Amino acid sequence: MITTVLFDIGDTLVRAAPPATAVGDLVAEPFDGVVRTLRALAGSYRLGAVTDTSVMTSADVRTALGGTGLDGLLEVIITSSEIGAAKPDSRGVHAALAALDAGAAETLLVGDSDRDEAAARAAGVRFARVGGDHDLADAVRRALTEVDGAFTAAAALVGPVDDGAADRARVHHDRLTKPRGSLGRLEALGIQLAGIAGCEPPPVPAPAAVAVFAADHGVATEGVTPWPQEVTAQMVANFVAGGAAINVLARQAGASVTVVDVGVATDLIDAGVGAPTTLERRRVRAGTWNLAKGPAMTPEEVRAALDVGADLAVRLVGSGARALVTGEMGIGNTTAAAAVIAACTGRPPVAVTGRGTGIDDSTLRHKVDLIEHALRRMAPDAPPEAVLAEVGGLEIAALAGFIVAGASLRVPVVLDGVITCAALLVAARMCPPVVPYVVAGHRSPEPGASAVLEALDLEPVLDLGLRLGEGTGACLSVGILEAAARVLADMATFESAGVGAVR
Amino acid sequence: MITTVLFDIGDTLVRAAPPATAVGDLVAEPFDGVVRTLRALAGSYRLGAVTDTSVMTSADVRTALGGTGLDGLLEVIITSSEIGAAKPDSRGVHAALAALDAGAAETLLVGDSDRDEAAARAAGVRFARVGGDHDLADAVRRALTEVDGAFTAAAALVGPVDDGAADRARVHHDRLTKPRGSLGRLEALGIQLAGIAGCEPPPVPAPAAVAVFAADHGVATEGVTPWPQEVTAQMVANFVAGGAAINVLARQAGASVTVVDVGVATDLIDAGVGAPTTLERRRVRAGTWNLAKGPAMTPEEVRAALDVGADLAVRLVGSGARALVTGEMGIGNTTAAAAVIAACTGRPPVAVTGRGTGIDDSTLRHKVDLIEHALRRMAPDAPPEAVLAEVGGLEIAALAGFIVAGASLRVPVVLDGVITCAALLVAARMCPPVVPYVVAGHRSPEPGASAVLEALDLEPVLDLGLRLGEGTGACLSVGILEAAARVLADMATFESAGVGAVR
Repeated sequence: MITTVLFDIGDTLVRAAPPATAVGDLVAEPFDGVVRTLRALAGSYRLGAVTDTSVMTSADVRTALGGTGLDGLLEVIITSSEIGAAKPDSRGVHAALAALDAGAAETLLVGDSDRDEAAARAAGVRFARVGGDHDLADAVRRALTEVDGAFTAAAALVGPVDDGAADRARVHHDRLTKPRGSLGRLEALGIQLAGIAGCEPPPVPAPAAVAVFAADHGVATEGVTPWPQEVTAQMVANFVAGGAAINVLARQAGASVTVVDVGVATDLIDAGVGAPTTLERRRVRAGTWNLAKGPAMTPEEVRAALDVGADLAVRLVGSGARALVTGEMGIGNTTAAAAVIAACTGRPPVAVTGRGTGIDDSTLRHKVDLIEHALRRMAPDAPPEAVLAEVGGLEIAALAGFIVAGASLRVPVVLDGVITCAALLVAARMCPPVVPYVVAGHRSPEPGASAVLEALDLEPVLDLGLRLGEGTGACLSVGILEAAARVLADMATFESAGVGAVR
Repeated sequence: MITTVLFDIGDTLVRAAPPATAVGDLVAEPFDGVVRTLRALAGSYRLGAVTDTSVMTSADVRTALGGTGLDGLLEVIITSSEIGAAKPDSRGVHAALAALDAGAAETLLVGDSDRDEAAARAAGVRFARVGGDHDLADAVRRALTEVDGAFTAAAALVGPVDDGAADRARVHHDRLTKPRGSLGRLEALGIQLAGIAGCEPPPVPAPAAVAVFAADHGVATEGVTPWPQEVTAQMVANFVAGGAAINVLARQAGASVTVVDVGVATDLIDAGVGAPTTLERRRVRAGTWNLAKGPAMTPEEVRAALDVGADLAVRLVGSGARALVTGEMGIGNTTAAAAVIAACTGRPPVAVTGRGTGIDDSTLRHKVDLIEHALRRMAPDAPPEAVLAEVGGLEIAALAGFIVAGASLRVPVVLDGVITCAALLVAARMCPPVVPYVVAGHRSPEPGASAVLEALDLEPVLDLGLRLGEGTGACLSVGILEAAARVLADMATFESAGVGAVR
C-alpha cells in the first residue's frame, strides 16, 4: 500500500526554467491540473519533492514555488545542491524518505526522466513517469492502480472543486444579456461545471457515457419483487441489442451505453453479432447472497466491484467521455439500496423503503421487516465498506467506484434513481469530496432517493416521476447540463451586444 | 365572412371508386386527415356535399360513407342523380345553399377538378382546390385565410385531438420493456403527442422552430420595470446576431429561431449581413398605448397581430417544423400579461402579478394598482379580443395566433413563461380545443403563469426557476418531448425482446 508520494519538480510539476535563469528570476509555472492533483493527494498521502539543482537550496525552491500553492503541499523538499548528489544517485530519495519517516516499499516517486527512474530503482521505491502530455494525475493513477487498485487510486485523486473557476463563472453570468439570475438552475449548473472542470467557460459535458451496472440479489427469493430473477439477464440482452429505454434515451442524448455484468446470477443471453451496445463481462460473483440470511458478499468482493466501476470510468473518460451517467439493472436491488441508505443515514428502514417497480402494501411491509432484521446484524457506526458487504449489491459497489473515479477525473457524474443514490451515499462516506462533482439528474419517487438528496444537499434537475432506473432519469437531464455549459460559452455580454443594462 | 363549406366527395374527401364499382360494393376510404378536418370545421361552419354520381341517391352516399364518421358531419348531401344535373352545372350547389339556408357570398366549395371550380363560379361561391397531395386542410386554410385572415382560418381548423391514437399509445406503453408506468411524465407526453399527430407511434417533434415575438408597451413609461424601452430593439438585434440565451438553447435543441417585430417602438438596429437568425418585419404598430391611461390598441390591431402569429406558424410548419416553441421579448410585458390573466381568470391582480425581471416591493405594489385601475374600464365578461385590445400586447396577440395555428396544424406547441401563458389563456377562450395541443415547457416563478397552468390543468415539464422569457424554458424542454416520442417508436416490447413479464 502506497502512503507517500515524492515528485521531481522541473518538467514534472512545473515547466523547467531555461538553464541560465538567475535564481531570483525563477517564476514557477505549474502544468495544468498539477496543483489540483497535489491538493487531492495531500488528503490521503504524505508528499515530498526531490529536485536536482546546482545552486538552489530547499528554501530557494520554496520561494520560487510561492504563489503556486505547491509550496504548502510539499512537506519536504530535498535539493541536490544541499545533499551533494544528483539523480540517478538515490541519496536525495533516501533523504526524503527519512524526513517523512516512510518506507521505500510504501513510496512512489513521480518524475519525467530516466535519471528519476534510476534514482527510484536504486532507492527501492516505485516509479511513475509523466509523459509528454504532462498529465501528472494520469501517471499517479496508473501507479497507484497497479499497487492498490483502481478505486483506491481514484479516491486518492479526488480533490476539492475549483472555487476560483466557479466564481469566475458566477461573475460572467452577470455580464450576459439577461436579467441577473434569470436562468435559474441553469446558472447554478454552469457554475458547478466550471468548478468541476476548473475552467471558465466550462467545457461542454459531451459526449456523455452511460454505464449500466447489472447484478443480481439473493434477496430476490424473499418475495420482495414481482419480477423473476432471470429478468436481469434478459434485460442485459435487451440493453446489448439496443431496445431498452436507456438505449433510446442515450441515442437521443448522443451518449454511449456500456453494460457491465458485475454480478448477474444467470447465464447471459447472446445478443448476436453487431449488437450496438458494449457488454463488459466483469462478473465478481453470480449475484449476492440473500441479505435476509447473512452478509451479501465478502469484503474482497466489495473491493473487486468498487474497482470494476472505477476502472470503467477511467476507460470511458480516456476514450473521450466528458460526463458520466450512472445506470443499473438488478431485480431486487431497491431492497439492497434501501438497506444501505438506512444504514448510512441512520433513518429507520420504513422511512427510506419504497415500492420499487410496484409492490403492494403487504409486500412493502415484508420488505421493510426484512431490512430491519438485516440491519440488526451491523453496528450503527459500521464503515461504508462493511455496509456494502452486509446488505449492499455488486452494482451498488461498482457504481460507488464509478462515481469516485468520475470525480477524480473532474467530469460531472450524473445521478439517476435510488440505487445510484445509495451508491453515492457510500462513495461520499468513503471519499467526502466527491459530492460537488455529482449532479442529481432527477428526483425518483422512491423515498430513499429523496433521503439521500436531502442528506447530501443535492437538488435534482428533473422531477418527472420516472422510477425505471437504468440511468433513464439521469440521461434525460444531460441535454440540460450541456445547455448550462453552452450558455456560459456562447451568450453575448451586455457590452459585446450593445444592450443597455438596468437603469 | 365564410359560414358554410361545401365539398365534392370523390377524390376530394374520399378516394374515388373505380367507375364500374357496384353501389353495394362501395366502401368509402377518406384521405388522411379528412375526417379530423371536417370534425374541426363542424365546430364553426355548416357543412355539406355536392357530388356527381349517375346512380346513387343521397341516402346511398350516406350508406357508403357510414363508418368513416363523415356521414354525421355533412348536414346535407346533394347528388347529381337526384338533382338531374352534374357539375359544371351549378344546380347542385344551389340546392345545397338552399338546404343550408346559406348565401353564395358566405360559402366556399372545395373540390379537386375544373368541373367543381366551374360549378362554384357559376353559383357565385368561392372555390378551393385540393392538390395532388389531397391535403384538404391546406386547401381550406388557404381559402379561408384569403377571406377572413390567417387567424380565423386557423381557429376553424382546430379540432379535438385523436383519442384513438392516444389510446393506442397508452396500450403500447404497457407492452414496452419496463414496469408499467415507470417512465412517468415521459409516458404521458408520448400519449399526448400521439393524440396531437393522430398516429402511433407519434412522429418525433423535430425540428422545432422557436418564434420570438417582440413588441413594446406604452405602460413601460409608468415605472413598472427598471429596463429602458430601447432594450427591446437592442435585444432584437442580439437575437438576430445569435447572442441571446434563446439562440444558444435553440442551437443546442436543433431548433431554428425566427424573430418577429410585431410592435417594437424604436428603430431596429441593423444586425449586419449574414446574421444567423431570421428577422420578420411585421410591425402592426410601434408599441401599444399606455394601458394605464386607455386601451392598449384597437380591435383591428389585435386582429392584425393575431394574423401575424398564425401566418408565421403556418409558414414554419410548411417549411418542416414539427414542434412550435413560443417566445417573446418586450420591456413591460409582464404588466400586460398579468392584466390579461386577471381579466380572463377573474383572479385579483395582486394574486397574478409578479416581479418580472426583478422589481422591489413598492414597484410591485404600483404595478398591481395600475392593473387594478385599468381593469375597472372593462366588463367582467369582456370577450378575449376586447381584453387584448384594452390591456394586452401585440406580442401576446401574435402568440395567441401562433398557438391556435400550431394546434390547427396538429403539431405540439410548447409554452414558455407568463407572457405565453397569457396568450394561451386568450387563445383557449377564443378557440377552446387548442389546449390539448399545448405542452407547458416549464414552470415560471411568476404567479400569473401558475394561475394559467392551474386554470387549464397543464403540468409543466421543467421547474428550473427560469424567469427570462424569450422561449428559453420552453426550448429546454424540447429534448424531453423528443425523447417521449422516441420511446414509443424505438423501445423493444416484452415479446420482441424475450423479457419475462411480472409473474
